Amino acid sequence: MINYPIKKENYQKKVLNNHANRGMALEELINKSNEYYALNQIAYIHKRPTPIKVFKTTDNDKITEGVFLKPSTLDYVGVFKGRYLDFEAKETISKKGFSMHNIANHQVEAMKQIVYHQGVSFAIISFKSYNEIYLLDSSFFIDAYNNKLSIIPYEKIVENGILIKEGYHIPLDYLKAVRMAYFEK
Amino acid sequence: MINYPIKKENYQKKVLNNHANRGMALEELINKSNEYYALNQIAYIHKRPTPIKVFKTTDNDKITEGVFLKPSTLDYVGVFKGRYLDFEAKETISKKGFSMHNIANHQVEAMKQIVYHQGVSFAIISFKSYNEIYLLDSSFFIDAYNNKLSIIPYEKIVENGILIKEGYHIPLDYLKAVRMAYFEK
Repeated sequence: MINYPIKKENYQKKVLNNHANRGMALEELINKSNEYYALNQIAYIHKRPTPIKVFKTTDNDKITEGVFLKPSTLDYVGVFKGRYLDFEAKETISKKGFSMHNIANHQVEAMKQIVYHQGVSFAIISFKSYNEIYLLDSSFFIDAYNNKLSIIPYEKIVENGILIKEGYHIPLDYLKAVRMAYFEK
Repeated sequence: MINYPIKKENYQKKVLNNHANRGMALEELINKSNEYYALNQIAYIHKRPTPIKVFKTTDNDKITEGVFLKPSTLDYVGVFKGRYLDFEAKETISKKGFSMHNIANHQVEAMKQIVYHQGVSFAIISFKSYNEIYLLDSSFFIDAYNNKLSIIPYEKIVENGILIKEGYHIPLDYLKAVRMAYFEK
């Protein structure tokens, strides 16, 4: 049977979904924005590499056996106007809200620690069904976790989050939202 | 072609240290100190995973082909008393000093950016021949790089760095040096 050339988009998704990195579309928007921020000396922010445990390498250091590990940290870390930023990026197709199953307990613990040490911590959530992307402060995830809630309702995110628009020069200028949320209080 | 195989060194060191507690590799001293800092809510600092490019995985997500990539970022990143820390850890057997060949151009560029955005950036250098470990501010690496110097002499590091002592509860309390260098000015 022939597999017809499907949309490149779908192909990419398939490839990317091979390992934990779901929601690469969002990830790519953020990565490209980070490149823009770096080039224009606006901020220094990088994705943490996916942790991997390597079991075997060849003599010339190629990996022949390894596994992906579950990260206990958040996706991105960096510095912006002297402040420490540490955040997660998540895509969801849900219309109801953000399911807490999408975030590991360790990651919520990470958020607590970051906030405790006066860092800035949040998540960027892409609602694919609505074609909307929000910045939501970590306190909402910590609250949901502490109260054993399984979901943060979409309405709550709309109300308390900051809508981030996709743009031309900066694919996703999420630092605009960061400024609003953490620098203009 | 890809620029690879770094860090085999670190990997090997880890393996070796399974057999011996003494003479812990610098990385392990720092990792264990970071665990102490996290548990005691002193700081939130993590090693960035080594970036890897994965070419092949099995259906159940095991890696069967991959290579190590050369990182353009520094080894560790975290937040301490509201400040962004980003630093490199290096061991050397040289008695003359720290060879600039041990640090990639990209990493010096990273230091420049971190400092520009008001982060705290430094390196922890372990002189194995002297059994001494120093914290040295990034400005010395940036200067050496700008002036095309091949080495930062040992004497210069002794004079300008801060000696870090190994300890019992905290294997390597480098945050004490960080406090002295960046918080008590």
